[in-house]
Amino acid sequence: MAEIIEQLKHVVSPKSVAIVGASSDFSKFTGRTVKYLLKHGYSGTFYPVNPKREEIAGHRCYPSVKDLPEPVDTVFIQIPARFVPGVLEECIETGVKSAIIHSAGMGEENEEGKKRQDAIKFMAKEAGIRVVGPNCAGIANMWENIFLSPIVCYELDTIPKGRIGLISQSGGLTGAYVARAAARGIGFSHVISTGNEMDLEMCDYIEYLLHDSRTDVVAVFLEALRNGKRFLEIAESATEAGKPIIVLKVGRTRAGARTAASHTGALTGSDFIYNAVFKQKGIIRVEMMEDLFEVSSLFCKVSPPGGNRVGVVTTTGGGAALMVEASAQSGLDFPMPSDTAVKAASEFLPSFAAKSNPMDVTMAGAGGGFKEGLRVMLDDSSFDMVVGVVGTSSQFAPELGVKPILEVYKDTTKPLVAFCNPNAEEALRLFEANGIPSFRTPEACGRALGYLVTYGKYLEKRKKTTARAELPALKESNQRLVRSILDRPAGILNEYDSKQILSAYGIPITREAVAKDEEEAKTIAQKIGYPVALKVLSSDIPHKTEAGVIKLSIESEKHLEEGFAEVLANAKAFKTDANVEGVLVQQMAKESTGALEAIVGIYRDETFGPALMFGLGGVFVEVFKDVAHRIVPISELDAWEMILETKGAVLMSGYRGKEKMDIQAVVLTLQKVGKLLEDFGDRILELDINPLIVYPEGKGSIAVDALIRIN
Amino acid sequence: MAEIIEQLKHVVSPKSVAIVGASSDFSKFTGRTVKYLLKHGYSGTFYPVNPKREEIAGHRCYPSVKDLPEPVDTVFIQIPARFVPGVLEECIETGVKSAIIHSAGMGEENEEGKKRQDAIKFMAKEAGIRVVGPNCAGIANMWENIFLSPIVCYELDTIPKGRIGLISQSGGLTGAYVARAAARGIGFSHVISTGNEMDLEMCDYIEYLLHDSRTDVVAVFLEALRNGKRFLEIAESATEAGKPIIVLKVGRTRAGARTAASHTGALTGSDFIYNAVFKQKGIIRVEMMEDLFEVSSLFCKVSPPGGNRVGVVTTTGGGAALMVEASAQSGLDFPMPSDTAVKAASEFLPSFAAKSNPMDVTMAGAGGGFKEGLRVMLDDSSFDMVVGVVGTSSQFAPELGVKPILEVYKDTTKPLVAFCNPNAEEALRLFEANGIPSFRTPEACGRALGYLVTYGKYLEKRKKTTARAELPALKESNQRLVRSILDRPAGILNEYDSKQILSAYGIPITREAVAKDEEEAKTIAQKIGYPVALKVLSSDIPHKTEAGVIKLSIESEKHLEEGFAEVLANAKAFKTDANVEGVLVQQMAKESTGALEAIVGIYRDETFGPALMFGLGGVFVEVFKDVAHRIVPISELDAWEMILETKGAVLMSGYRGKEKMDIQAVVLTLQKVGKLLEDFGDRILELDINPLIVYPEGKGSIAVDALIRIN
Repeated sequence: MAEIIEQLKHVVSPKSVAIVGASSDFSKFTGRTVKYLLKHGYSGTFYPVNPKREEIAGHRCYPSVKDLPEPVDTVFIQIPARFVPGVLEECIETGVKSAIIHSAGMGEENEEGKKRQDAIKFMAKEAGIRVVGPNCAGIANMWENIFLSPIVCYELDTIPKGRIGLISQSGGLTGAYVARAAARGIGFSHVISTGNEMDLEMCDYIEYLLHDSRTDVVAVFLEALRNGKRFLEIAESATEAGKPIIVLKVGRTRAGARTAASHTGALTGSDFIYNAVFKQKGIIRVEMMEDLFEVSSLFCKVSPPGGNRVGVVTTTGGGAALMVEASAQSGLDFPMPSDTAVKAASEFLPSFAAKSNPMDVTMAGAGGGFKEGLRVMLDDSSFDMVVGVVGTSSQFAPELGVKPILEVYKDTTKPLVAFCNPNAEEALRLFEANGIPSFRTPEACGRALGYLVTYGKYLEKRKKTTARAELPALKESNQRLVRSILDRPAGILNEYDSKQILSAYGIPITREAVAKDEEEAKTIAQKIGYPVALKVLSSDIPHKTEAGVIKLSIESEKHLEEGFAEVLANAKAFKTDANVEGVLVQQMAKESTGALEAIVGIYRDETFGPALMFGLGGVFVEVFKDVAHRIVPISELDAWEMILETKGAVLMSGYRGKEKMDIQAVVLTLQKVGKLLEDFGDRILELDINPLIVYPEGKGSIAVDALIRIN
Repeated sequence: MAEIIEQLKHVVSPKSVAIVGASSDFSKFTGRTVKYLLKHGYSGTFYPVNPKREEIAGHRCYPSVKDLPEPVDTVFIQIPARFVPGVLEECIETGVKSAIIHSAGMGEENEEGKKRQDAIKFMAKEAGIRVVGPNCAGIANMWENIFLSPIVCYELDTIPKGRIGLISQSGGLTGAYVARAAARGIGFSHVISTGNEMDLEMCDYIEYLLHDSRTDVVAVFLEALRNGKRFLEIAESATEAGKPIIVLKVGRTRAGARTAASHTGALTGSDFIYNAVFKQKGIIRVEMMEDLFEVSSLFCKVSPPGGNRVGVVTTTGGGAALMVEASAQSGLDFPMPSDTAVKAASEFLPSFAAKSNPMDVTMAGAGGGFKEGLRVMLDDSSFDMVVGVVGTSSQFAPELGVKPILEVYKDTTKPLVAFCNPNAEEALRLFEANGIPSFRTPEACGRALGYLVTYGKYLEKRKKTTARAELPALKESNQRLVRSILDRPAGILNEYDSKQILSAYGIPITREAVAKDEEEAKTIAQKIGYPVALKVLSSDIPHKTEAGVIKLSIESEKHLEEGFAEVLANAKAFKTDANVEGVLVQQMAKESTGALEAIVGIYRDETFGPALMFGLGGVFVEVFKDVAHRIVPISELDAWEMILETKGAVLMSGYRGKEKMDIQAVVLTLQKVGKLLEDFGDRILELDINPLIVYPEGKGSIAVDALIRIN
């Protein structure tokens, strides 16, 4: 087992704990920590530490950590920030294994706090003591009754134990989640407030929970990942461990320092890339506060179904309609029952009700029709899952409304969930207690089932991806070529060099060469064949069109002579002493009818590293921001998904009787660009292929213009 | 007062009621109606009707309506459908003023039921007795303690009285709403289940509630409007009465019979038009089940603020972050506090907290900081409204968390609302009881405030619109022209005739005329000036481009001779005996750089009547369905809103340094098309201007192609 797991065991499953700054006044937060630890029956050894007390809540109180009779597993520190370094030093000296620092006034507050935090970080690292926080709300280990937190939610006498491990970057939200989930009968295995993540960070906690036998689903409240690359690995481990990660992330605008030298950059808000990573790695991102535990609870209880077809049995029409409406927005489908099912249902329902989905058992509901309806729908292979919608009875006679679902639930392997139409708190708790996922609102139910289907699709895709089909390694000569270009000084490579790199990776580019003078241009044009384009290459002229140093559709040698003079004159007019590296003579890419312009970009995301962007050009990217992002490495399926995720993709898929475009060629281009990025991601900061012209199916695609920025 | 109000008074405020099919078995629904009427203290006269009983719940029971000692205000009918006609007849005979028919098995069930319903509809209409339902769950009048409904939610001992009038097309949902709202301390004035709306329909109930002194907001659960045109009027009355209408509508796919002869039709799903109408008329459409009463409750308690700037004061960081995130999605803004406010707040907060929004008073919260923070934010003119976010205290010490908000609430006129982070049911009830809008989830809070701002903007817009700036009436000669064209037989008018109508309304069209032969074509081309286009006019050739009967960019007389022969030959090849009405010789509209192609459409919506559609052409309309709809009459502001609502509008507004387009010209075109529709909406089924070429600002727009379909 990884070292981190052993280390974290001391934090979340300590055999002995000390609380530094413990108080016997339970109305203060310093007393509450003590209160909750004892109230919920901590079975290990507890040492209050406070120089001003002899005893707290019947436990002998120690003046300092130094005075403790043993090196405890963890010390909970809740004293003013300025005293923390001293206490941590004592912890280190006496061999304490870990510390949970509740104290604020650290990195989150101001420069002084940041310095203090850096100091204790250094101390902890040197000594190898692992630290939770600072500025955190502590931890709770429900199954072992270990509560090290002053959060008021632990006033609750009974806190349900569950199989959701909650990690939160907001301390306050841990309280809200415990309280809200408890009211629903939904429990957690662990609740961890990460605080400033000075030492232990989000990925450490996730990794621990992936190893924890009492955790089936990891629920995360996220503000920002401190180690994006590690998260990519952890996400893979989660899938392998069969433990879904459910994330609620708040979007943060970042004053990013990166200059957007190309469209790619300008479109890449950092939240996009989180979305892309979550999609690519099978992380479920929920959008609503309560979804974090409702969806997690669903994922704990059922396995993803093979499809998106939902059968609904209801005792109430309106509530079911709302549920269907909400679910349809999440991509769920509501087909009609099979003939067999209709026949079976007709025995207890009027034919118009039996033939429907939702199957509304209203009048027949009381007479066992609800239970029969559920059974019929569960038996029907037309459905991948079934929702029971319970009307008013679920509030005023909870057991009555819940019972039919409980009974059929025992005999089914198909996902079966419940939504209660009225304010049916008791019924919801009964469902949860019996292992049946249940929902407060029709919208939550629809969203959650949508997430379940999405996760199922991800697992299917991942199976297919298996060992990623590696592109062949670059030939030695091509490798040398690429390396020689990338060895240039930091900055923007010109179009020719940029495209040489693409070409080395097998990405089709326009036929082209650099001419030093008019004669050479003529020779090149002859070789390429007219018409050609002329483009002045100069790092002093970043925007060629605006400077007039591009001449398109040159049809003849005479035309070329004129054009060559013109572009050079314009270059000079733009900047007298512009350093002209040459004139690119370039094949005019056929913009045949139906050809489409796409954009492929590379950029380096602060959090996750090298990333890819794809979109159709023009209004697609400019007005609708209709682009897709992925992190490298990128599989063939990832590339397909990426393309099909854009709305513009309909234009490539044989839309309205138009020709299909060569999507496979774009897929290959994306994979090759991904490979380039894998090989040289350390050198390449940005790449912008704009446009990549995509031809009809079988006719490929071609990079017409490209720029690479290197560091 | 309108007759309908007097008539509905008998239903919702009866001095005397009879329940036909009353039972003394309170476990049956027929007994529950009796139980709830009595339980909640009905003060009028109650007559149970049941031939098998002498007495029910201490009330003398009558064998039939005929035997009642007086003609009651309303009769609640809950007997099998087949007996309903007989009972209704007795009601009519004895002068009963209204009936609430609970019985199902009518129009909603099958053909037989539909016939039955038609029969009783006829009877009721003849006799002038007004009917609620059939197939309805009855009514509740909270302030007068009148409950005529078997819905189990009325088991509740205390049902809060409020100022929201709820009308629902689902009976089951009335129960869910009453129960859910009651748990939150939110009450209704009236709850009306409309059932099949055989006689009284949605708009009648809305109209009644607009006149009801105890109703401030009308909340509607809607499946479909039966009288869209009346709804348009009622919506206006609602605004005039200062009573917002909040609607939760489920989308229904309609097997519409209309053939989509143009793009317009194909894009016009019926739900779009509801959205358009709601926008145009200031109806707030909510999307989530509980929003219907949460948003309504907010609208009852506060007036819309003048802007969208929200100040947040919180005792907990995470919850506030979620709230802000959700609110930002609803178009709310969270500016920083003013210097004055920061200075004031610095007296009780650390400077980094005082300068922020959300203003996080964490540590200082307990010491009165929360209250002070709220006061500072409410006093700050940087904010149009303030949200107080209450942390864990709101659950475990409800009064403590609620008190500061209550105290500042008394002294403020600015909207102030509360969101509780944990599971704070008691606190939410306390807020409601004290008139402070409160929210269960951060998302609900954000959405609701967004709706409030939207409504405020609508009211502002409406003030500006005042008397709609009428376009000048059509000149007599133009009127005659339009009428003469529209007097033709039903079908599609050719391009020339269609555009003549547009031209008569002052909409710029291409210069053009119809040539009978080549010579005439030459003369016309001479007059128009080359280049011209030729188009064969023939109702037998609907798709001109495909048939090759269009020739563009004809530059000379020689070219015209060739083209003329070619298009006629192609017409003949397409259909040997095609009836050619002539050849349209048409100015080539300058597609100058930056000109945009737009589409303007007219269609007739089944529910609301004549409607307008606008969108940019190409992928905007085809891929993104980026179109806006409005009902006529359309004001200048409506037209502006309509255009700016499309995402494509950014291309018209001087996007990325490009020229601004002549939006005013498009506005005028939309208004003129609107006027045409007002004048001749009875004749025109469809109109499709495609493209309308829009030029840069000051240069107008021009209808290049158009088709009108008449009936």
